[in-house]
Amino acid sequence: MEEMNLHLTGDFHAVTAANNLIAALVDNHIYQGNQLSIGPDDVTWKRVLDVNDRTLRNIVTGLGGKINGLPRETGFDITAASEIMAILGLATDVQDLRMRLGRTLVGYDRHRQPVTADAIGAAGSAAVLLKDALSPNLLQTLEGTPAVVHTGPFANIAHGNSSIVGDYVGIRSGDYLITEAGFGADIGAEKFFNIKCRASGLAPDAAVVVTTVRSMKYHSGNQEIKAGLPLPESLLEENPDDVTEGAANLRRHIGIVRRHGVVPVVSINAFPTDHASEHDVIAKVAESEGVRWAITQPHTEGGPGMIDLARAVEDATAEGSNFTLLYPDDMPLRDKIETIASEVYGAGAVKFDAAADRQLKRYERLGWGHLPICMAKTQSSLTDNASVLGAPEGWTLRIREVQASVGAGFILPLAGLINRMPGLGATPAAHGVDIDHDGNVVGLS
Amino acid sequence: MEEMNLHLTGDFHAVTAANNLIAALVDNHIYQGNQLSIGPDDVTWKRVLDVNDRTLRNIVTGLGGKINGLPRETGFDITAASEIMAILGLATDVQDLRMRLGRTLVGYDRHRQPVTADAIGAAGSAAVLLKDALSPNLLQTLEGTPAVVHTGPFANIAHGNSSIVGDYVGIRSGDYLITEAGFGADIGAEKFFNIKCRASGLAPDAAVVVTTVRSMKYHSGNQEIKAGLPLPESLLEENPDDVTEGAANLRRHIGIVRRHGVVPVVSINAFPTDHASEHDVIAKVAESEGVRWAITQPHTEGGPGMIDLARAVEDATAEGSNFTLLYPDDMPLRDKIETIASEVYGAGAVKFDAAADRQLKRYERLGWGHLPICMAKTQSSLTDNASVLGAPEGWTLRIREVQASVGAGFILPLAGLINRMPGLGATPAAHGVDIDHDGNVVGLS
Amino acid sequence: MEEMNLHLTGDFHAVTAANNLIAALVDNHIYQGNQLSIGPDDVTWKRVLDVNDRTLRNIVTGLGGKINGLPRETGFDITAASEIMAILGLATDVQDLRMRLGRTLVGYDRHRQPVTADAIGAAGSAAVLLKDALSPNLLQTLEGTPAVVHTGPFANIAHGNSSIVGDYVGIRSGDYLITEAGFGADIGAEKFFNIKCRASGLAPDAAVVVTTVRSMKYHSGNQEIKAGLPLPESLLEENPDDVTEGAANLRRHIGIVRRHGVVPVVSINAFPTDHASEHDVIAKVAESEGVRWAITQPHTEGGPGMIDLARAVEDATAEGSNFTLLYPDDMPLRDKIETIASEVYGAGAVKFDAAADRQLKRYERLGWGHLPICMAKTQSSLTDNASVLGAPEGWTLRIREVQASVGAGFILPLAGLINRMPGLGATPAAHGVDIDHDGNVVGLS
Amino acid sequence: MEEMNLHLTGDFHAVTAANNLIAALVDNHIYQGNQLSIGPDDVTWKRVLDVNDRTLRNIVTGLGGKINGLPRETGFDITAASEIMAILGLATDVQDLRMRLGRTLVGYDRHRQPVTADAIGAAGSAAVLLKDALSPNLLQTLEGTPAVVHTGPFANIAHGNSSIVGDYVGIRSGDYLITEAGFGADIGAEKFFNIKCRASGLAPDAAVVVTTVRSMKYHSGNQEIKAGLPLPESLLEENPDDVTEGAANLRRHIGIVRRHGVVPVVSINAFPTDHASEHDVIAKVAESEGVRWAITQPHTEGGPGMIDLARAVEDATAEGSNFTLLYPDDMPLRDKIETIASEVYGAGAVKFDAAADRQLKRYERLGWGHLPICMAKTQSSLTDNASVLGAPEGWTLRIREVQASVGAGFILPLAGLINRMPGLGATPAAHGVDIDHDGNVVGLS
Repeated sequence: MEEMNLHLTGDFHAVTAANNLIAALVDNHIYQGNQLSIGPDDVTWKRVLDVNDRTLRNIVTGLGGKINGLPRETGFDITAASEIMAILGLATDVQDLRMRLGRTLVGYDRHRQPVTADAIGAAGSAAVLLKDALSPNLLQTLEGTPAVVHTGPFANIAHGNSSIVGDYVGIRSGDYLITEAGFGADIGAEKFFNIKCRASGLAPDAAVVVTTVRSMKYHSGNQEIKAGLPLPESLLEENPDDVTEGAANLRRHIGIVRRHGVVPVVSINAFPTDHASEHDVIAKVAESEGVRWAITQPHTEGGPGMIDLARAVEDATAEGSNFTLLYPDDMPLRDKIETIASEVYGAGAVKFDAAADRQLKRYERLGWGHLPICMAKTQSSLTDNASVLGAPEGWTLRIREVQASVGAGFILPLAGLINRMPGLGATPAAHGVDIDHDGNVVGLS
Repeated sequence: MEEMNLHLTGDFHAVTAANNLIAALVDNHIYQGNQLSIGPDDVTWKRVLDVNDRTLRNIVTGLGGKINGLPRETGFDITAASEIMAILGLATDVQDLRMRLGRTLVGYDRHRQPVTADAIGAAGSAAVLLKDALSPNLLQTLEGTPAVVHTGPFANIAHGNSSIVGDYVGIRSGDYLITEAGFGADIGAEKFFNIKCRASGLAPDAAVVVTTVRSMKYHSGNQEIKAGLPLPESLLEENPDDVTEGAANLRRHIGIVRRHGVVPVVSINAFPTDHASEHDVIAKVAESEGVRWAITQPHTEGGPGMIDLARAVEDATAEGSNFTLLYPDDMPLRDKIETIASEVYGAGAVKFDAAADRQLKRYERLGWGHLPICMAKTQSSLTDNASVLGAPEGWTLRIREVQASVGAGFILPLAGLINRMPGLGATPAAHGVDIDHDGNVVGLS
Repeated sequence: MEEMNLHLTGDFHAVTAANNLIAALVDNHIYQGNQLSIGPDDVTWKRVLDVNDRTLRNIVTGLGGKINGLPRETGFDITAASEIMAILGLATDVQDLRMRLGRTLVGYDRHRQPVTADAIGAAGSAAVLLKDALSPNLLQTLEGTPAVVHTGPFANIAHGNSSIVGDYVGIRSGDYLITEAGFGADIGAEKFFNIKCRASGLAPDAAVVVTTVRSMKYHSGNQEIKAGLPLPESLLEENPDDVTEGAANLRRHIGIVRRHGVVPVVSINAFPTDHASEHDVIAKVAESEGVRWAITQPHTEGGPGMIDLARAVEDATAEGSNFTLLYPDDMPLRDKIETIASEVYGAGAVKFDAAADRQLKRYERLGWGHLPICMAKTQSSLTDNASVLGAPEGWTLRIREVQASVGAGFILPLAGLINRMPGLGATPAAHGVDIDHDGNVVGLS
Repeated sequence: MEEMNLHLTGDFHAVTAANNLIAALVDNHIYQGNQLSIGPDDVTWKRVLDVNDRTLRNIVTGLGGKINGLPRETGFDITAASEIMAILGLATDVQDLRMRLGRTLVGYDRHRQPVTADAIGAAGSAAVLLKDALSPNLLQTLEGTPAVVHTGPFANIAHGNSSIVGDYVGIRSGDYLITEAGFGADIGAEKFFNIKCRASGLAPDAAVVVTTVRSMKYHSGNQEIKAGLPLPESLLEENPDDVTEGAANLRRHIGIVRRHGVVPVVSINAFPTDHASEHDVIAKVAESEGVRWAITQPHTEGGPGMIDLARAVEDATAEGSNFTLLYPDDMPLRDKIETIASEVYGAGAVKFDAAADRQLKRYERLGWGHLPICMAKTQSSLTDNASVLGAPEGWTLRIREVQASVGAGFILPLAGLINRMPGLGATPAAHGVDIDHDGNVVGLS
């Protein structure tokens, strides 16, 4: 893992380089006469670095007089939040990569018309910088099975899945391709289905919904679990009733998969501290939904601990999926958002802030109404409030703002405040990492 | 070449990542209580990116209130100007790399005491990020001979040579190791001898001084050559007299090599437009200095065009060098600078601006007086004025400011204004780079 | 009027000078060693200028390296929004002025303890700059009656009344002192009673509630009136029904005065376009509330047009007021806010945002709990939503943030976004102002 | 004096208000569509405040997004450094004031054409704000003689004299008008003659050159006098030889006055610690130059201590001056500067930095070549190096930059670094100023 978290694939470096080359070309365009009349306050493209650095969130560039460019308020995001990362993940080949880069929005001119990466002559060179990074990286697991590792877009402000090209390679290289889809079914699967599959043309044969005894108990609302604190001991006590109470959440995730015409399989990720009675509850929930299930023990057993699940998935794929997108391309953006809210999240209504309303209208007018929706919502709840558990209905989803990732090819409604550049903690992990006297790396796990 | 200029070696990405991790840890230290009392205006460490971006030269970071860190004036340099690049080039092994990173100066505390990368817990993780980049990259030439390509520190604000580790690998892998040393003998060779050889413990057996008919004519002062304009036609006319008039400059470069006890060899880099009479003049200058010479034609002839030079170098190495450093470690910094000025540049005196004087005293007091000097001077003249030709004597070198690259291990007097972050031109090369319909790269040469 | 709007009284210049001297001393304290450890992001004191200048709202100061101070995010407010203006209006004498300046909050130290103007040695010199400005300015009206003109604090972020010292002078100089209290009874009178009278020790004998036929019609909700557009013609048509429908708002204002034990008198400010039937409606509303009323015509008739009102006020004062503060000093801040919300605005509940809640707790802890409340709320509605008409009940007042004007002596809950620095329009009034060929001023009215 | 240093005349407040109104209108012009295409980096007009505040020297305004204007690097000067102050001092009447304001340069458009205060519609309203401030203030001395106090432009970056309108009033109100002209004859008198007299049309009948025993000894170069340290005791010992050695400086100042055709009178400003033998030396120097002299004791004797000087001046005016400007309007700017350098300062040559050269050419091209020169040079030496004493010849004056005060009506070459915004010290005078328990001001002298 150590290597993978450093430079191994080079994807992150290439994305950083391409992203920042575009930024330099935007500012250089403004500096060199600004033929497109891009207002300094109208540049939407930001720079990225692959380091947690809160002080780069809000900066002023171009200081030091005319010779150093025009002053401008901007900032850095973390590399995974770059639209380039999403583009790399959604491009189907190098031509498609080039096309997506070309149409990428970098700002607006004084007439509020969009300025693209192509308009400032940045897309070609960015594509060249990314060409090699478009090839997936083939690794192997400890058991010798092949694993394609490729791209890492954020699942909150992007679609959060590994690359389409990686899937193309994988699906041609074996009998089954297993790919992961970020968070829960409301975030990960919904985006996988409606953004990634829409772009790739591939359709899933089955979908595994992973759950644990703990998460079921958590969703009962009877447990006090707080980020940063150790799990309460009570969580480990045998308590099948709490598992039952938390089942509504699991049923909803199953339902989201079914809504897209895909056959779900429940994976009960077992812990040594689980009780058999608790597994039984989950199994019964699955059965009551008419869904296959299996108990898995990957951490303690490795591959053999996954055999049951593999068989259940094999069966499920044989059943035959009938994959359906949640909404067609030509549905208005507002309706698409409301469809996701009601059919996936269980919301009763959507409230659009004035800015969001204005932006949606502008994006429709600019011809981006056909794009799918990539919702920026907390992954900790089916609602937009991270502390709400279970599977509530009738609540109101609030959309504060809507951004346009035209290159990646989706519209991004913000249902909450999204931080695109994390900060380091009081004791950053980096403090523990070093090279010892024998030249070995210590402190990475 | 295309690949090499993009991501091939990964060195630049690793340097960028390590450099910016240190920067993030400095700012995080200040944010998290600032136990070392580092003043926001006393951070000397800057960030880097490998893109020409003038608007990043002077920036204000940490805006947006307390939660986003303390406001601070800072900027980005280009990656090649990072002290990390110089450290990577001068480290003799991974332990030495770790040690140099640890002692690297990142700023001062409120008592004007230095704060190092180790003090803020950044050196270990930076070393881990650089570990793989410390291994040289082995390529081969079109003729199949091996070439080690490794690190690219600026020759103006760093020592400008490829890595010591690369030399260690190269010297054990063949009969002769040929390595390049930036600009002319005043900049490239002087730093190679007194910084790189001092650090590596290696001693050169001979040194090739490359010259051309054109450069000799240019130094005669009889030719009007201006950057950005085509060369004047008169430069191509047969004119051995001008070559003779420009000889003083060549003689000085030969003398600089000799001053270090190394046997020089003059390489006359021939152009098809040269005249034999002009080559004769250079050959006679070399002979009058008692120096071997050869005419080379690498561009038109490849390896065979270099055979004469190779034989001359072979002879020279047989003669036996008596390598001597220009100054000992324990000479005071001021005297070291004056020694370089008088014995290498031919200056009559050195004038230290008040700031430079103050800094030199402080660096001595802080225990950095034993470090060698890395002069930041124009490469276009033996003097500090880029438009002065020939080999003038008795002029005064002006030192405006002195910086301390404690990690790399040298003191950096600035004899002129040095731009560490270039800008793009009105028609940046990036505009011409693209991927064509067949997926091939176009526009890179 | 022209003169009064320029420099006449000098109050604004003195406030500007004193305010900015304090700011300079805060930054100088930080620069000169910062003995109190004031964080650059913890300075609450801003600078002011008496000009509409949006580009000064958010600025970064202290750029240009260490010699020019520490970089800091701050901004300018308009002079009327300076806490100094409120202090000048509420000071009872020069000693009280000095005391209020001394306790004025300028920021927090690293332990989140308040730093006052006295702590940085700024209050004495600020008091000296303000000493002369504390003396009211005596002007006379066109009819020769004396008028005291003194101080102009904003009525949204301050208490919005002319000075206490001015009232002291006025009340000793004639039989009756008439003073104005900003906007409506919810903003102007409530602050006059609970802030200014609390500080001055004076009690009003009667209060005139000014109304117009137009405003009554507006509050009926049957008229479309928009800022920036001409009034609709329908507003001028005879329509006593609309006047009746808008009466609830007037009744509420009468009630607010009565709640403080003061005898109200309704002044019907007559326009030539009014209809007698409409005046009748208002008169009847007043009578049904048991309140004296008079029709006034100051614009067309001058003093004589006010005689009826003067007599009504004379009668009212004879009746004898029983002035009561709305809440005692020792009521907790949160309760004070809720009391104003329910008893003055007619709100059903108050919702405190998390920040507001935290701030109120801190202010209580810092010993500022005894201060009165100065609500920053829109003057266009009894609610916190400028477009809500009439006299609604049961709504929820939202408090976003709470600031502490410790020197002026009030706590400032923000019920909405308050702009402390206006901007100029596309055609600023200044464009029309000039000196003509005879040296006369033109363009001021 | 106390009052005069605070708000008395109101001039400073009016200048501050007018200056900053212009600034607001410039930024508003850019915000409201920027019809004149003023580049944010091409605004030359700065804001002013009448407080020492180093953190306002370099700021960025317009932050906070588009709604708060365009980000721009700018800063505040101290009010005395405002070009408005110089305009107020040089205007001959209200029409002239209006004209000068109108032509004042506020920046450049994208074609590098000048943008004036008139072009952005700011001059009329600025003139109205300044109208009253154009009237001089009449005070009286402790002995009852009238004194006109009016305007205070800096003598380093402006002409440093009180107002022309004040002189017009004074000269019509008595037999003799005495006015002061800043620093020494090289700065004060030269600017008085060539800028103020050129504008006013008035000619002086005589000029008093004030000297002291101390300053003569100082210019001998035999005394160690350092700013911030107490004067050395040796300065007070009887030492006529040192006075003699310092005489060259006095002779030069006398010569500067004579060069303009004006009759000089030497005033020996006596201190109780002076020795008669020292006064004798000065008197003899004056006589050897054929110049009247008198010993004055204003501090200890008041008016009577000035009688001798008054008589000498009376005699001098009877002699009859033949006032001549140093250079005509139509001399090129470069020649004017060289004329002042050689004929007033005694320089042998002038070196123009590249920027200065470029600016002078542009100003000639823009039609400002007819303006007089206002040199920004140290007042501590006849040369541009504050530590050079006596009356040196043959040195080289260096002009770094040239600014254009088109409204005031002069070209401003910078012969050194000029600080337009002072900072407060570690113990600012403001710390000692306060109001005592009786309401009296303490700490002002």
